[in-house]
Amino acid sequence: MLISIQEAAMRLIAHQNIRILTHQSPDGDTIGCAGALCMGLHALGKRVQICCNDPFPDKYNYITGRLITGEVEPDYIVAVDVADRKLLGRRIVDQADRTDLCIDHHASNTEWAKETLLDAKAGAACEVIALLLKEMGVEVTPLIADCLYTGMCTDTGCFRYSNTTPRTLRLAAELMEAGAQASIINLNMFEIKSRSRMQLERMALDTLRFAFDNQVAVMVTTREMMEICGADEGELEGLAPIPRNIEGVRVGITLRERAPEDFKISVRTDESVNATELCQTLGGGGHARASGCRLLGKTEDVIAQMLAATAPFVEKREE
Amino acid sequence: MLISIQEAAMRLIAHQNIRILTHQSPDGDTIGCAGALCMGLHALGKRVQICCNDPFPDKYNYITGRLITGEVEPDYIVAVDVADRKLLGRRIVDQADRTDLCIDHHASNTEWAKETLLDAKAGAACEVIALLLKEMGVEVTPLIADCLYTGMCTDTGCFRYSNTTPRTLRLAAELMEAGAQASIINLNMFEIKSRSRMQLERMALDTLRFAFDNQVAVMVTTREMMEICGADEGELEGLAPIPRNIEGVRVGITLRERAPEDFKISVRTDESVNATELCQTLGGGGHARASGCRLLGKTEDVIAQMLAATAPFVEKREE
Repeated sequence: MLISIQEAAMRLIAHQNIRILTHQSPDGDTIGCAGALCMGLHALGKRVQICCNDPFPDKYNYITGRLITGEVEPDYIVAVDVADRKLLGRRIVDQADRTDLCIDHHASNTEWAKETLLDAKAGAACEVIALLLKEMGVEVTPLIADCLYTGMCTDTGCFRYSNTTPRTLRLAAELMEAGAQASIINLNMFEIKSRSRMQLERMALDTLRFAFDNQVAVMVTTREMMEICGADEGELEGLAPIPRNIEGVRVGITLRERAPEDFKISVRTDESVNATELCQTLGGGGHARASGCRLLGKTEDVIAQMLAATAPFVEKREE
Repeated sequence: MLISIQEAAMRLIAHQNIRILTHQSPDGDTIGCAGALCMGLHALGKRVQICCNDPFPDKYNYITGRLITGEVEPDYIVAVDVADRKLLGRRIVDQADRTDLCIDHHASNTEWAKETLLDAKAGAACEVIALLLKEMGVEVTPLIADCLYTGMCTDTGCFRYSNTTPRTLRLAAELMEAGAQASIINLNMFEIKSRSRMQLERMALDTLRFAFDNQVAVMVTTREMMEICGADEGELEGLAPIPRNIEGVRVGITLRERAPEDFKISVRTDESVNATELCQTLGGGGHARASGCRLLGKTEDVIAQMLAATAPFVEKREE
């Protein structure tokens, strides 16, 4: 059941021992939500525990290293930025049926929790948490501001993407005034890359090839590349948009080898091509501009299969 | 002489035929200023001409293609985002002595014009123009909003850099409400790269090497690379920060071959190294985190010279 921000605030205030659940493969938004909510609830005198299926990536240490969180026997469980129970991950999915509240901004939220606070217009779940903390009368400390700013900037590509609204920018302004170290966070989130990531990007760029009069670009990352670079899964983040972001490209395709002859395909398109329709022809799906599918086979065969599936979409324009 | 925003507004309102000067090698901020001011002055019934030393890059066509500007015998000349008369460029520097007003945000502005409207806290000169147009009572149309947003997002790295203030974000929010196509502008300014640029970046990354326990990274672009890629000077923009943005690197050095055995060196540092001091030892200068110099010689010799100059700075930390 959907509830209002006032109702959500009352529920949280009414409970004392609160467990916060993030989604698996945690990103800046789910971590920022958990951090800000945890600190906000502490300020109200509550005991809080944060549970995540996976370890938090090192780059969020400035948040996770400052959280006080221990074992709690919860009388209330709240999930943040978790659109579906599956996204809790294998280790904590058993908490799904007991989850009292899910706070989210995904229009695709399945309303899997007992109650849901959903604001699909928010650029990030942290935007909802910011409004919720106001409602709860929590003062935004510099640390809370860092958490909320992190989620808002990472989910909006630092205010670049179309999910950024005037409200997002105004809330970010307030967070800066509350002490968020915006430029340092942005440097660490967007500018600094590991050596292994840099090398992986270079090797991936070496595989770039074009088709259909340069309207389609294809890039590949293999397990061998990752081994050579010493790169982990997390360092693949941000590679998928590269082919699409080349001038004139309408369909950008990234092949990521997950196991021998087993590829995860990411498809990014401009507004002239529907990525969901394209990926559905191969058993996949997703959003209109960003979709994916899985294909089995040798690299060259998988590329040939992708190009064959793409052909009708890029040939459409002249019709 | 420095004047207030109210005085600047009165000056502009009092004149009828106005010439706007941009700086040479025009970027999003000077073009956005010129475009917004031109349209705003048109709305007040004035005749306006824009003069620039160089052609406007194609990627700003959505602004420059929509401007109505012709020959004007000016009774008032205003420069936008021009910190020093030299930056007007060879072709229009003869206008410097006649320039009535310079509107700028560079703390280094030399007050070269008869009067100067300077706001060194503004993230972009467009932020000053936004406030000035308000003062002049000009309605911000969607086209003017596009211009102002362009300058504000390009000069702040889309609100990533430390020159972004809460005011910057709030003005950007107002511009979105006035109709600025923020996400489309951001896509074109920050995401889309030409094929030649992409290839150049790949070749430059291939030259990356590290020194002093990976505290120093060096990258090279040569004239041969530019020819192979078919890249022009403009496509070198944004390459200089790459070496510094690798995890653990304190000094990032980029060599750009301008002529045979003639290199422009860009030095970017973290807060532990003063780039100005480093470059001054080689006859260069600049800002604390971003400086440059010029060195003559063969590539390997120039790199050796740079590393020798850098050594005392990266060895300092342990002292």
